[in-house]
Amino acid sequence: MAFFITLEGVEGSGKTTQAELLSIWLESNGYEVLRTREPGGCLIADRIRAILLDPAHQGMAADAELLLYAAARAQHVAEVIRPALARGQIVICDRYTAATLAYQGYGRGLDLDLIRTMNKLAVGTARPDLTLLLDYPTTAGVARARQRNRVNKGENEGRFEAEDEDFHNRVRDGYLQLAAEDKSISVIDARGSIEEVQMRLRQALNRRLPLPAPDRP
Amino acid sequence: MAFFITLEGVEGSGKTTQAELLSIWLESNGYEVLRTREPGGCLIADRIRAILLDPAHQGMAADAELLLYAAARAQHVAEVIRPALARGQIVICDRYTAATLAYQGYGRGLDLDLIRTMNKLAVGTARPDLTLLLDYPTTAGVARARQRNRVNKGENEGRFEAEDEDFHNRVRDGYLQLAAEDKSISVIDARGSIEEVQMRLRQALNRRLPLPAPDRP
Repeated sequence: MAFFITLEGVEGSGKTTQAELLSIWLESNGYEVLRTREPGGCLIADRIRAILLDPAHQGMAADAELLLYAAARAQHVAEVIRPALARGQIVICDRYTAATLAYQGYGRGLDLDLIRTMNKLAVGTARPDLTLLLDYPTTAGVARARQRNRVNKGENEGRFEAEDEDFHNRVRDGYLQLAAEDKSISVIDARGSIEEVQMRLRQALNRRLPLPAPDRP
Repeated sequence: MAFFITLEGVEGSGKTTQAELLSIWLESNGYEVLRTREPGGCLIADRIRAILLDPAHQGMAADAELLLYAAARAQHVAEVIRPALARGQIVICDRYTAATLAYQGYGRGLDLDLIRTMNKLAVGTARPDLTLLLDYPTTAGVARARQRNRVNKGENEGRFEAEDEDFHNRVRDGYLQLAAEDKSISVIDARGSIEEVQMRLRQALNRRLPLPAPDRP
């Protein structure tokens, strides 16, 4: 059965680890799962991502940036997400439309309606059935993300982590605001052990998806 | 005085040569002129153009392609066109929003309203004051463009020229349809000698811009 789950949250909220555990758990329950992430997720989108992240492009116009994110997303939806859903798989995507609203909209102050228009253009009918928002204190999250990036030097995700604390607080508050307006977004307390957070995610998912009762992790 | 001119037309209609002559003539009359072209016109837009033209990207989704063109255009407007107009220059741009409507809309059959939305997002208030549409028989035009590309092998503009004659006829008819709906588009007969066509362009421009009477070319 096709079901589209997105994971959202500030830097260091544990999305990647939790998505991996959720995916293993769903597969062990007999579901076919496709895990992917944004920005990127396929060759063309990765090339667009490279333009977005290139430090030489400091002069990028805000609307050009939004359109590039939308282009990468449109390709990712057409090439990866929509075919997986058509095959009846469960898709778990790390960041999606809510991230653009939280980071570019609430974080950077770009027009929210404009972002919604771009999101709609990019995804068409491929809207998430469930968005799991990992809510985590921003100071601790950014410290965790920086620590991770020192360890995994190959990963170039530093652009947003370099922003100041105010920015990250606006992003977190923005995410919570989005959740207040949209019933498909579940807020998950991401404090505590990995296992505790994973149990909360499974419970939230169980309320939407007809699954066996969650095992102990 | 700021004035924004775009040149449009099918392949081989002589846009590049005519834009160059027009620019020389305007400068000799004391105007400051900036010549540019789409897609491209600045570093970031050129990198987007490279993604659009890469033959490895045959699987590009139609909406992703439109969003990439819009992103390149937004950057070009922000970085090149808007600053030049703000400095009071005359901007001459080879292809612009009408090209997307003619090629992707009328040529490829993508939704015209969707393209108009993207164009509006990309250009904001930077709409052309005058669009000079070089109308030319498509069979002769494509033959001319192919000839040119055999000579200038470095230029990779072959993607649209490889399309069949029906496609180019739809593009030409589409351009004429746009001109019928929009008074800022002047249709120029692009048959005849380079000098004859140039005189027609200067006359059309004279009707909009308070210029000295056109000299003999």
